[in-house]
Amino acid sequence: MKLYVVGLGPGAWDQMTKQAVDALEECDVITGYEIYVDLIRERFQHKNLITTPMKKEAERCHIAVKEVLKGQTAAMVCSGDAGVYGMAGLVYEIAQQYDPIEIVVIPGITAACSGAAVLGAPLIHDFVVISLSDLLTPWSLIEKRIACAAMADFVICFYNPSSIKRKDYLKNACEIILNYQKESTMCGFVKNIGRTGETGRILTLDELKDTQVDMFTTVYVGNSKTREIDGKLVTPRGYTIT
Amino acid sequence: MKLYVVGLGPGAWDQMTKQAVDALEECDVITGYEIYVDLIRERFQHKNLITTPMKKEAERCHIAVKEVLKGQTAAMVCSGDAGVYGMAGLVYEIAQQYDPIEIVVIPGITAACSGAAVLGAPLIHDFVVISLSDLLTPWSLIEKRIACAAMADFVICFYNPSSIKRKDYLKNACEIILNYQKESTMCGFVKNIGRTGETGRILTLDELKDTQVDMFTTVYVGNSKTREIDGKLVTPRGYTIT
Ligand SMILES: C[S@@+](CC[C@H](N)C(=O)[O-])C[C@H]1O[C@@H](n2cnc3c(N)ncnc32)[C@H](O)[C@@H]1O
Ligand SMILES: C[S@@+](CC[C@H](N)C(=O)[O-])C[C@H]1O[C@@H](n2cnc3c(N)ncnc32)[C@H](O)[C@@H]1O
Repeated sequence: MKLYVVGLGPGAWDQMTKQAVDALEECDVITGYEIYVDLIRERFQHKNLITTPMKKEAERCHIAVKEVLKGQTAAMVCSGDAGVYGMAGLVYEIAQQYDPIEIVVIPGITAACSGAAVLGAPLIHDFVVISLSDLLTPWSLIEKRIACAAMADFVICFYNPSSIKRKDYLKNACEIILNYQKESTMCGFVKNIGRTGETGRILTLDELKDTQVDMFTTVYVGNSKTREIDGKLVTPRGYTIT
Repeated sequence: MKLYVVGLGPGAWDQMTKQAVDALEECDVITGYEIYVDLIRERFQHKNLITTPMKKEAERCHIAVKEVLKGQTAAMVCSGDAGVYGMAGLVYEIAQQYDPIEIVVIPGITAACSGAAVLGAPLIHDFVVISLSDLLTPWSLIEKRIACAAMADFVICFYNPSSIKRKDYLKNACEIILNYQKESTMCGFVKNIGRTGETGRILTLDELKDTQVDMFTTVYVGNSKTREIDGKLVTPRGYTIT
């Protein structure tokens, strides 16, 4: 019996891989955060679907591991990639407490990549991915990461850019970057990637600093070479163009 | 008429998204580097397949754009994600020289994510992606990026870790990281992800320093918290485990 940890991609059915669909089809039980299970509920309503609310991540993993130990093939679903701020890590950590089970991680398209495709090609060169959530990481370390990334002229992609309690975190992040990059640095963000209401916007770092985004948004800060080409955000890789 | 820039994922047919398959089915012409076109040749042999050798990236983009201007629906295929060291950026840059055409980027699973799934869950927390190829980027900038990433305790994922001319680049990169991280830092690499001969290995930074890998390999250097759990490489996100 196996536990699949499955990345569903950004949300659109056709942005899942065949491997992910096949794994879910093989399962008896599918567990996950309600909102993610909702993405696939219609196609898999004949399965045993077990949802837990946000912030119950550990509980969700215990449930999934126990189902496997009962003899079920189970999946834990995540949005995007299961290995990027997803459940794959916690599943391995929690499974340690039980008899050994087989765990298979099935990758999905992470928001950094799906959002980049909406905006154009901002991640073509070296980039960093940083979560602005300080729920599990001290803000001082997040600040240090932002500063080091900007100092080395990486393209920066922010996950969890905002929440009700963290209205000014993106502004703070932009201010740190402005110590190293110009106000005119090209940036962008995409809300609801692959879902109803998908919207992308391209703007300067100076404008981004004073923009409110929500938690269903992925944010991009270009490097010193990123520019706008015909309404698209593009980071050149450096090929000579003839 | 459209130009799709399509990420094929790491190589296995079932790691492509439905969206990518649908786009290729819609096309009259599929262009790309030989090795990538080979990944899908069998299923799309009835299409006009145009391949160009390595280092002919710009030429490939001109061909694709011209096909669209002739009235064809065309695709440019890339391995992994089209927007991560892929062709999406160059397509936008080169299309500027012609009459406007519609360009649609279709994301795919990038090697960082597909390789991470093979090893376990090394990218669960903030990470950087760095290419060790100095063909288009000065080595001094690559060095700076490595140092800044290690200094801020990011997980680091290296693309293009080696080639015939760059046998000691990964060693140099590890030496830079060793200025900030311990010799015992947990690392890993995966060769031929999603292809025949897929193999992953977990080792310490000290061991990685003296290991030769080839260009079909993606390399991971953990952060200070990354550890091995039952033969898997896992970076904890920081949840309290009960
Ligand atoms: C806990 S993380 C999960 C990331 C996910 N595992 C992935 O790989 O995309 C949640 C954050 O991912 C980003 N995100 C995930 N799905 C998104 C979508 N469909 N549209 C925009 N942003 C998304 C947002 O920044 C959000 O705050
Ligand atoms: C020019 S980059 C292309 C990256 C690709 N666009 C992606 O998103 O995965 C080539 C590098 O990607 C990594 N890579 C791509 N496909 C891989 C695979 N199937 N197995 C291992 N590494 C791979 C290797 O580090 C390789 O040197």
